Amino acid sequence: MSKILIIGAGRSSSSLIEYLGKNAGEFQWTVTVADHNLALAKRKALLANSPHCQAAHTDINRKEQFGNLIKKHDIVISMAPAYMHAAIARHCLELKKHLITASYVGPKMQALDDQARKNGLLFLNECGLDPGIDHMSAMRVIDRLKSQEFKLLGFETFTGGLLAPVHEDNPWNYKFTWNPRNIVLAGRGCVKFIQKGRYKFIPYHKLFRRTEILNIPQYGYFEGYANRDSLKYLDVYRLKGIQTLYRGTLRRPGFCKAWDTFVQLGATDDSYEMEDVHNMTHRQFINSFLSYNPSDSVELKLAHYLKLELNSEIMFKLKWLGMFDEEPIGLKKGTPAQILEHILKKKWTLGPDEKDIIVMLHKFDYEENGKHKRIQSHMVIEGRDSTHTGMALTVGLPIAIATKLLALGKLTATGVHRPITPELYNPILNELEKVGIQFHEHNENIEPLKLNMI
Amino acid sequence: MSKILIIGAGRSSSSLIEYLGKNAGEFQWTVTVADHNLALAKRKALLANSPHCQAAHTDINRKEQFGNLIKKHDIVISMAPAYMHAAIARHCLELKKHLITASYVGPKMQALDDQARKNGLLFLNECGLDPGIDHMSAMRVIDRLKSQEFKLLGFETFTGGLLAPVHEDNPWNYKFTWNPRNIVLAGRGCVKFIQKGRYKFIPYHKLFRRTEILNIPQYGYFEGYANRDSLKYLDVYRLKGIQTLYRGTLRRPGFCKAWDTFVQLGATDDSYEMEDVHNMTHRQFINSFLSYNPSDSVELKLAHYLKLELNSEIMFKLKWLGMFDEEPIGLKKGTPAQILEHILKKKWTLGPDEKDIIVMLHKFDYEENGKHKRIQSHMVIEGRDSTHTGMALTVGLPIAIATKLLALGKLTATGVHRPITPELYNPILNELEKVGIQFHEHNENIEPLKLNMI
Repeated sequence: MSKILIIGAGRSSSSLIEYLGKNAGEFQWTVTVADHNLALAKRKALLANSPHCQAAHTDINRKEQFGNLIKKHDIVISMAPAYMHAAIARHCLELKKHLITASYVGPKMQALDDQARKNGLLFLNECGLDPGIDHMSAMRVIDRLKSQEFKLLGFETFTGGLLAPVHEDNPWNYKFTWNPRNIVLAGRGCVKFIQKGRYKFIPYHKLFRRTEILNIPQYGYFEGYANRDSLKYLDVYRLKGIQTLYRGTLRRPGFCKAWDTFVQLGATDDSYEMEDVHNMTHRQFINSFLSYNPSDSVELKLAHYLKLELNSEIMFKLKWLGMFDEEPIGLKKGTPAQILEHILKKKWTLGPDEKDIIVMLHKFDYEENGKHKRIQSHMVIEGRDSTHTGMALTVGLPIAIATKLLALGKLTATGVHRPITPELYNPILNELEKVGIQFHEHNENIEPLKLNMI
Repeated sequence: MSKILIIGAGRSSSSLIEYLGKNAGEFQWTVTVADHNLALAKRKALLANSPHCQAAHTDINRKEQFGNLIKKHDIVISMAPAYMHAAIARHCLELKKHLITASYVGPKMQALDDQARKNGLLFLNECGLDPGIDHMSAMRVIDRLKSQEFKLLGFETFTGGLLAPVHEDNPWNYKFTWNPRNIVLAGRGCVKFIQKGRYKFIPYHKLFRRTEILNIPQYGYFEGYANRDSLKYLDVYRLKGIQTLYRGTLRRPGFCKAWDTFVQLGATDDSYEMEDVHNMTHRQFINSFLSYNPSDSVELKLAHYLKLELNSEIMFKLKWLGMFDEEPIGLKKGTPAQILEHILKKKWTLGPDEKDIIVMLHKFDYEENGKHKRIQSHMVIEGRDSTHTGMALTVGLPIAIATKLLALGKLTATGVHRPITPELYNPILNELEKVGIQFHEHNENIEPLKLNMI
C-alpha cells in the first residue's frame, strides 16, 4: 500500500491526478493533491473521481507544516515550479521519501545523488514530456541500434506544442498552448549544435531563418528551429563522438519567417523596460523599433526595413495579429517581450473548444554494413478537451506511470536519475503505449527534403 | 605649492605627465607617477623631463602603503581602471585629498558627493575625452543657446578614434587605436535614443545597418552608429523635453556594413567559449557560424547567407583581414569575441610610425525666431607620434589642465562633479585651446545629406 503526494495542482497535473485516482482503488493507494491554493487542489482532486483521493493545503515556506505533509506519504510528486525542487528534495531526503519530477536535474539536485542512493531512495527527474518522453523514446532506439552494433551517425529531435489540425484556421496556424513567456523568449542566447562532426553556432537573430522542413505521415509538413544548447546532450545520451546532434522546436511552415520580424525589430528583448507604455498602441510599439519618418506609414517602414513585400504573407500575419492597429496595449509598463506577449495573447489564446497537439519527432542516422540509413520516429498526441490537453496528457502520464511502477515495486533504481536507462524507460514506455502514447517508426531516405539549410 | 599624485602609468597618461612636468618648475609642484609596474612608472616619469617629477611603486591592495602614498600629496589623479575609482575616492575622502579621473561617475562615486562637499574636496570625474571633452564642448554651446533664449530642438554627438588620414591605406580605413576589446563588443545590448520626440530602440543585430553619414570640413565623410544609451544624457545635459538626443561613434564610410558581417555571423558574441579553439584556423572560425555543406566554399556560404556579392567590397575587406585563410588562430581557448579580436589584431595594430586621430562632432538644432537652425561643431586631433597619440593628448590634457587649475586655486567647486557647469568647463576649454585642442563651428542646412536613415 502506498501514500502518494502531488505537490502543485496546476494545468499539467490533471491527467496525472486522474490516472492515479483510477488506480488508487485497485492498489489501495491514497493520493493527496496539495497546493497553496486549496480550492484549486480540491477541484483537481475531484478529477480522480475516487474516495482514495483528497486535497490538502501546502506552503513550502512553512517548513514544519510542509515537512509534516511529506511525512505522511511514501512517494512525492512535485509539479511545483522547477526552482523549488531542490528544497523539496532535501525534505524528501531527510524524511526518506521517493521523489518524482518533470524538471531538469540542476546541480543542487545532482548533489543529492549519493545520499539518496545510500538511503535507498529514487529521485526521478525529467520524467514529463520534454524532458521526459523525449529521453525515453530516443534512448530506446539509440540503445537498440547500439546493441545491433550499428554505428550511430546522427540524432536530431524536435518537439512542438501546436494547435490541433482541425483548429488551424488562423494565418499563423498557431496559438499559445504552453507557457507564453517561454515561447516569446525561445532561443534567446546562442544556439549550439554539432553537424557532421563540426560545431555550429547560430546567433539568436539568425535562428528563425535557419529552419529545417520535416514531414510527419498524416500530419503533413512542419518546420523546426534549433533549441539553445544541444551539446549538453552528448553526455546525457551517451553520444560522445557522434557526428550530428541537434534538438529543435516544431512549428507549422511559415511561422518562423514571420516570427523573425519580431526578432529583427528587437520586440522579443527582455532586458529593458520601454518608455511611456501606458500610452502606447500596438502600432506605436512597432514604430518604436523603426526609423523616424513622419511621411511614411509604419507598414511601409517595416516592410522596407526588413525587405518584405507589402502584400506578403508575413505582412498579412502581422496585420491579422493587429500589430498595426491603434489599439491601446493595456499595460502600464513592460519590456518589449512582455508587451509583445500581451499583444499576442489577444489573438493567440485557445478558445474553450479548441484543442492542442503535441508533436515529437526523432531522426536517427546510422551505418549498417557500410550503408547510411535513417529511422524516423514520431508521436502525435491530440488534446481531448481543455482540461485533458495534449500537454497535460504527455507531461502528466509519464509521471503517473513512473509513480505507479514505483509504488508496485517495479522500479528499483536509487539515487538521482533521468529515465535514460532501460530499467527506467522500458516499463514506463510500455505503460504509455497502453494509454495511447506511442511512437511510430519508419525508414527514410538519407537525404530528406530540405527547403532550408540548417 | 602642490603635490600631485598620478596613479596609473598606462598609455593615456603620457601627455598628462608631460604637461604637468612642464608646469612643475614654474609653480613649484612635485609630481609623482605611481604604478604597480615601477619600471613603467619610471619610464613615464622621464617624459616630464623635470626634476620635480618622480616615480613610485603602488599597490591598491596594500592599504596602508597605498594610504601613505596618497597622504603625501594634495591632488590625486587616477588613471587606474574604472572599477578602482570608488576605493581610491574613499582613501581620498579619509585623507582629505582632491581627486580627478576620466571615468564615468558610478553610484559608489556619486554616494560620496555629500561627504566630499562637507570636507571641501573636489572629486572631478569624466574629465578626459569621452567622457570629458564631449561634455564640456557640448555644454558650452547648449548653455550659450539657452542664454540666447533659443529653443533647443535636438542634439547629436559623435566621437571616433581612427587612423590619421595619411595612413588610411587599408580597405577598412581602420586600425585599433583604442581598447580593442571595447571596440569588438561595441553596441552589444539594445540601443536607445530619442528622435523628434519619439523613443527609438535598435537591437544590436541592426545597429551597424542604421548609420548616418556626416561631413567634416577638410576631413571628408564619416559614418556614425549609435551608442548604447543616449537617454541617460537627458539628465546630465539638462535636456529634458528635447526632441532628439543621439550619441554615436564615428567610422569611415563602409566600415559599418562590413563590420556587420561579424555581427550577423555571431562572431562578436562574448557569452560562451567555443570548442576546439587550439586547432582552429581563421577559416574554420568563420565556418563555425555557417551551415554545413562540404561541397560549397566558406566564401560562397558566407556570401549567400548574408546576401553579399562574391566580389563585393565587403568580401574584399574580409579577405584582406585573412578571415578565409587556413591560418591557425593561435589561441588555446576563447569566446567568439576574444577570437575575433585576436585575428583582427594581426592586421589592425598600429605600426610604429602610424598615427591616430580623434574626431568629435556635435550637431545642435534650435529654433530662432520660428526658424530651424543648426550649428555643427567639430574637433579633429592628430596624434603626434606613438607616445603622444591623439588619444593620449585628448584624454590626458583635460585632466592635466583641470589639475593645474585646481592647484592654482581656480576651481572652487566641491563634491562629486562632471565638467558640465561653466565654472568647470570654461577654464578647462580655454586652456585646451591654448594647446591646440579646439572646436570649429559652422552653421549647417537643417536637412543634411543622409544616405541612411538612423
